[in-house]
Amino acid sequence: MKAMGDSLVTPDLTARTDLARLIDHTLLRASTTKADVDRLCGDALEYNFWSVCLPPLYVRQAAQRLRGSETRVCAVVGFPLGQSKTEAKLAEAESAIDDGARELDMVADIGALRSGDNEAFYVDISTVADLCQRSNTILKVILECCYLTDEEKIRGARLAERAGANFVKTSTGFGPGGATPADVVLLRKALTKKTGVKAAGGISTLGAALQMLEAGADRIGTSSGVKIMEEALSKSG
Amino acid sequence: MKAMGDSLVTPDLTARTDLARLIDHTLLRASTTKADVDRLCGDALEYNFWSVCLPPLYVRQAAQRLRGSETRVCAVVGFPLGQSKTEAKLAEAESAIDDGARELDMVADIGALRSGDNEAFYVDISTVADLCQRSNTILKVILECCYLTDEEKIRGARLAERAGANFVKTSTGFGPGGATPADVVLLRKALTKKTGVKAAGGISTLGAALQMLEAGADRIGTSSGVKIMEEALSKSG
Repeated sequence: MKAMGDSLVTPDLTARTDLARLIDHTLLRASTTKADVDRLCGDALEYNFWSVCLPPLYVRQAAQRLRGSETRVCAVVGFPLGQSKTEAKLAEAESAIDDGARELDMVADIGALRSGDNEAFYVDISTVADLCQRSNTILKVILECCYLTDEEKIRGARLAERAGANFVKTSTGFGPGGATPADVVLLRKALTKKTGVKAAGGISTLGAALQMLEAGADRIGTSSGVKIMEEALSKSG
Repeated sequence: MKAMGDSLVTPDLTARTDLARLIDHTLLRASTTKADVDRLCGDALEYNFWSVCLPPLYVRQAAQRLRGSETRVCAVVGFPLGQSKTEAKLAEAESAIDDGARELDMVADIGALRSGDNEAFYVDISTVADLCQRSNTILKVILECCYLTDEEKIRGARLAERAGANFVKTSTGFGPGGATPADVVLLRKALTKKTGVKAAGGISTLGAALQMLEAGADRIGTSSGVKIMEEALSKSG
């Protein structure tokens, strides 16, 4: 398993666990049922994914299903628009942690960022980050990069890091664009080593996942984790 | 102005207000800034739209901007996935009403509906509906129809009506499909006259809006309100 901040070159494809431990196995679709969540968790256990990433409604179910395993539950907060009020994001975060989430993927207020209101952008994040620090929870802050200029991405990433984010994440997967290697490079350069980069949005093949890791991503968010692992295993076989 | 439940044939295109009073002028995009909200409200005042439809973060600003006008503020709740916990939806609804929202567009838990858990689906809605009834707030319940069978749409609409919804809405605009005339007809038939149907998602032309009204829609949600009104005015000129 790679620790955050380690040099992340192409993982060893023969080491099934290596790659799986970099993947947040993700299910963020309005049509999700409890049966889907159960399957997602079953896949996560089979492949030993780092986490399952889910909306608040399904956190408790997933945490119960994954109890005793190495796979964490990651909950999205303010997802995908990031236009809940800070109090709502905080309450959602508290509830998800109570339900068993050990990581949160919170959507930042990029409207504030784009308007130059750095203070509002920062406080929205730091409010949730303070809770996360008190409760030993990893906080990933999503910048919907497809809507941002490079200057906004860099400023947003640095403000998020200063506010206490453990990761900056490229995309929700609900915007018109997802993760790009160029954005991963940009965010990686903007951040210090203590803060990770999560690439997510449209990563549906092994090749795309490896491209993100080579660009400097420390974590991959994808709903195609099983397909990616099967590709990796067939190549290593 | 048409009252909800009136027969809704093609509105008189020469009556600019007629059509405008059926439109929730909508801005639900991650990139929104306060300047965008100000423009949206300005347009709503100019065309006399029934409401502006916005995420919670912008409700207070819009309510202040629209004070004293006929245009209401409508806030989305649990949007667009509907996979917040009921407590979170309730808190979001309370906060939006405090901030000045007079209508709420809440996304239902279609995972529960699809799993046959009518009780969970109903309670999620009735919890928010009870608040809305106490505070004289219109509640629209969104069924993300593109993910549902006809049986699920009918069952969902009837449960929503019984739980206290004032409208059932076809789509969020974030799914793979938006409003269709067939779904409007289906929902209209499933509901009694006291409950309206709101068509939303992908309605970007006057023709599409009129098609929905002819199918039985009582309200139109669109981010193309200005374009639609300009089309209507040019035809009537």
